[in-house]
Amino acid sequence: MTETADPTAVNGAQALIRTLVACGVDTCFTNPGTSEMHFVAALDAVPEMRGVLGLFEGVVTGAADGYARMAGRPAATLLHLGPGLGNGLANLHNARKGHVPVVNIVGDHATYHKQYDAQLESDIETVARNVSAWIRRSDATAEVGRDAAETVAAAVGPPGGVATLILPADVSWSAGGAVAEPAGPARAAVPAETDVVDAVAKALRSGEPVGLLLGGTALREPGLVAASRLANATGARLVAETFPTRLERGAGLPPIDRLAYLAEFASAQLDGLRHLVVVDAKAPVSFFAYPGKDSYLVPDGCDVHLLAAPGGDATGALEALAELVGAPEDAATRQPADRPDVPSGALTAESVARALGALLPEGAIVSDEGNTSSLFAPGLTAGAPRHDWLTLTGGAIGQGMPLATGAAVARPDRKVINLEADGSALYTVQSLWTQAREGLDVVTIVFNNRSYAVLNMELNRVGAEAAGPKAKELLDLSRPDIDFVAISQGLGVPASRVTTADELADRLARALAEPGPTLIEALVPPLM
Amino acid sequence: MTETADPTAVNGAQALIRTLVACGVDTCFTNPGTSEMHFVAALDAVPEMRGVLGLFEGVVTGAADGYARMAGRPAATLLHLGPGLGNGLANLHNARKGHVPVVNIVGDHATYHKQYDAQLESDIETVARNVSAWIRRSDATAEVGRDAAETVAAAVGPPGGVATLILPADVSWSAGGAVAEPAGPARAAVPAETDVVDAVAKALRSGEPVGLLLGGTALREPGLVAASRLANATGARLVAETFPTRLERGAGLPPIDRLAYLAEFASAQLDGLRHLVVVDAKAPVSFFAYPGKDSYLVPDGCDVHLLAAPGGDATGALEALAELVGAPEDAATRQPADRPDVPSGALTAESVARALGALLPEGAIVSDEGNTSSLFAPGLTAGAPRHDWLTLTGGAIGQGMPLATGAAVARPDRKVINLEADGSALYTVQSLWTQAREGLDVVTIVFNNRSYAVLNMELNRVGAEAAGPKAKELLDLSRPDIDFVAISQGLGVPASRVTTADELADRLARALAEPGPTLIEALVPPLM
Repeated sequence: MTETADPTAVNGAQALIRTLVACGVDTCFTNPGTSEMHFVAALDAVPEMRGVLGLFEGVVTGAADGYARMAGRPAATLLHLGPGLGNGLANLHNARKGHVPVVNIVGDHATYHKQYDAQLESDIETVARNVSAWIRRSDATAEVGRDAAETVAAAVGPPGGVATLILPADVSWSAGGAVAEPAGPARAAVPAETDVVDAVAKALRSGEPVGLLLGGTALREPGLVAASRLANATGARLVAETFPTRLERGAGLPPIDRLAYLAEFASAQLDGLRHLVVVDAKAPVSFFAYPGKDSYLVPDGCDVHLLAAPGGDATGALEALAELVGAPEDAATRQPADRPDVPSGALTAESVARALGALLPEGAIVSDEGNTSSLFAPGLTAGAPRHDWLTLTGGAIGQGMPLATGAAVARPDRKVINLEADGSALYTVQSLWTQAREGLDVVTIVFNNRSYAVLNMELNRVGAEAAGPKAKELLDLSRPDIDFVAISQGLGVPASRVTTADELADRLARALAEPGPTLIEALVPPLM
Repeated sequence: MTETADPTAVNGAQALIRTLVACGVDTCFTNPGTSEMHFVAALDAVPEMRGVLGLFEGVVTGAADGYARMAGRPAATLLHLGPGLGNGLANLHNARKGHVPVVNIVGDHATYHKQYDAQLESDIETVARNVSAWIRRSDATAEVGRDAAETVAAAVGPPGGVATLILPADVSWSAGGAVAEPAGPARAAVPAETDVVDAVAKALRSGEPVGLLLGGTALREPGLVAASRLANATGARLVAETFPTRLERGAGLPPIDRLAYLAEFASAQLDGLRHLVVVDAKAPVSFFAYPGKDSYLVPDGCDVHLLAAPGGDATGALEALAELVGAPEDAATRQPADRPDVPSGALTAESVARALGALLPEGAIVSDEGNTSSLFAPGLTAGAPRHDWLTLTGGAIGQGMPLATGAAVARPDRKVINLEADGSALYTVQSLWTQAREGLDVVTIVFNNRSYAVLNMELNRVGAEAAGPKAKELLDLSRPDIDFVAISQGLGVPASRVTTADELADRLARALAEPGPTLIEALVPPLM
């Protein structure tokens, strides 16, 4: 295949890939199949596009999510028909809930082949609808470039979202593709409505208790600074959503606590508020329903003001409010540098968090799917050097390892630390192989407490009758014990097991000093 | 929780589980979450129901498929909301394509909680539609028993299929459940239409070349015997569908070749036919489309007669035809016992197949996801003692290990042998842990050729331009090499690596002689 200046001489796959590159999408996470082979073949004709193989589609989609959170622009996926999309669905769900842009390309049978109901035939659209803000089936090779440009625009938003492009094999392989320009300039964030801003300003001046619930884009430095100025000037309470897409934090940044996962604690954080200002977030509800308990966590008599919805100009609205209430420019609180000592003694979820706080390098990216074992990590890293904290935005476990993988692809200049629960790790553990192949700087700490600890807690919280042995069996990850060191080594990532805090700190320090992926299996008791 | 005779005193979960048991469903494969905790808690109140934990939903759904293929009745799944269903979708797709009954239970948020769009909220129905023959959302505790009974009936068919029951958490936890009776007697298979039987009989007597394409239920002994009588009496050609749900074969059973995966070879098998009689199968089409090649593989001028669709009485129709053409009762061919010698020397896909043929025990169940590496296995086991052969019915890889797991749960009296390709193994390798926990008699042979070999072949076959290094990289499973022995041991299953045919035969013989799971990693060169 020779390069050519005539865009009509490229096939659909090449037109697609060149258009993606033109639109700023130059990384494609994939596990392709036969119907995607022309896309794969076309990668060699477009040197700007990087292809990254995942051994399972859940790795692919979670990596695309992590990439976009840290690159600030989407990656593409390339998935194999309906089943490939199904395998990747859970992490697309997480991306959807986090408003993360993903250019989600799903290969399909050739247009004329679909009528035959071959083995891999299924209704792709119906699955895609579960996670996609936008779906396009590309019907003709001449249009696939334009379709790709529109897919990127739909993914970018704002708000960001999963935009799915279904790509029939013959549309990909046929000649007559045309490279398209980006589909116009990026959409601007929607400014806050004046009457909402005025109502919030009035509430802030009223002396009544006001809370600011920040999420999404409000959790980057400019939004946090404006919110902190506001809080300091008015006495408003600041709180971040429970599971942020990306929270900028650490020494020098305004500190913010997250709303608790447990509704009881979240209610305490919101108790007594007369106004709740929601900024690129949603009014708080409990993660699950519990018999006899409220799902909606806004206190009775508290007015909710939606200052910015996802896609809104949250930071602009916060800055405008800070001016309105006369908050000085330098009035934001800045977290002082403050690290715990390197821990010693028993290895627990808390001592792991302490070691992390003691050793976290400047600019680290934390992919946090430690679940119950992560409880202490935010507090003990609050004064560590500036870093990013990425969380499980949609609650679909199996995100942490893929997310870390994608974040490391996006930011090879930074260390990625993946706090990972044992049960969640086993959903998408294949991620380790991609980390090894790509030489990614990811340090994974698996909290091995040999149980679905969160479910042991939830089994009680939902008010189920006293759990018998059969129920407990289904929440237990022993018998046999899982050896994460062996699994990691089997997938090409060096690993070691630690049983004391001293060992953990030592291994973590060494892992952070060396390039490439490492896994540390931390044998910890369950928290609950 | 005490047992009670008053059915209204049970909660929804108990009513559901008791109804499943009453309908013959006594095994539930699951990876539950908080919204399923009352179902989990209720398991201890119903001793007849067995709960089997999978570490990932793809294991759960594939195991339910394998269980049903060998038990002849469905298992239940229990999945956690939309993402859990997504994770299990690929193997439900395979079950759908194989007409395998699965009682697919998907937990959901409490009915009143859905309005709050909590993190795990998504449109479950839209995903379920991709794979389900039938979907029911249970809205009220009083009805969940009846809903469960209807779900089982819908799953059983015939034809068998995936019947999805969406179970809101509060429907599960509330009091007032009522155990339901089975929803009427099982539906009868649909008899063949008389005019089709007559037309087929006429074709068989015509002297024109006739082929019988058998699938589904026609591939059990009674159907095979009737078809073999027919073939011997009339000269008709017999062929089985490419990927049977369950093929009964071996010494003493009528032998039958499967239609080739490669369209070129399949066309040769069908070449010259004037009539193709389709029996619980579909008219043959190529697996994928290829540029410039036909998708529909029935020769020009060949009439297709649909003797039995899925759900039809395929065996009855074949037996009726055998009578109509006067085929003697004892005219079926019976495969003579004939085993290859135990192999020696180089380890290849062929020598693995030879060892299998030499050592396959009576009553073995073969879960075949060896893909390219399985090419020689059917031929070299044709004269082995009677056994069952289960294949990748829907083409969605990651089925072999879960299928073996479920088959072993269904038939603890039989040895299960899983032929597994390296790339496919890595989709659902977590299955090994369930095999270890449940002490299942599964011997897994992983063909480690360090590539997606089928895609290397397909890349050429689809007519893609000469593959460059980036394309080849995405089909390669080395760098780093994957160590299946380490992964298997990490998941609790003893494993060893073999590099010669002698070693393989030795390890296989030992594995077959011992109870419990074993994995053998066979380092083989790619076939293509």
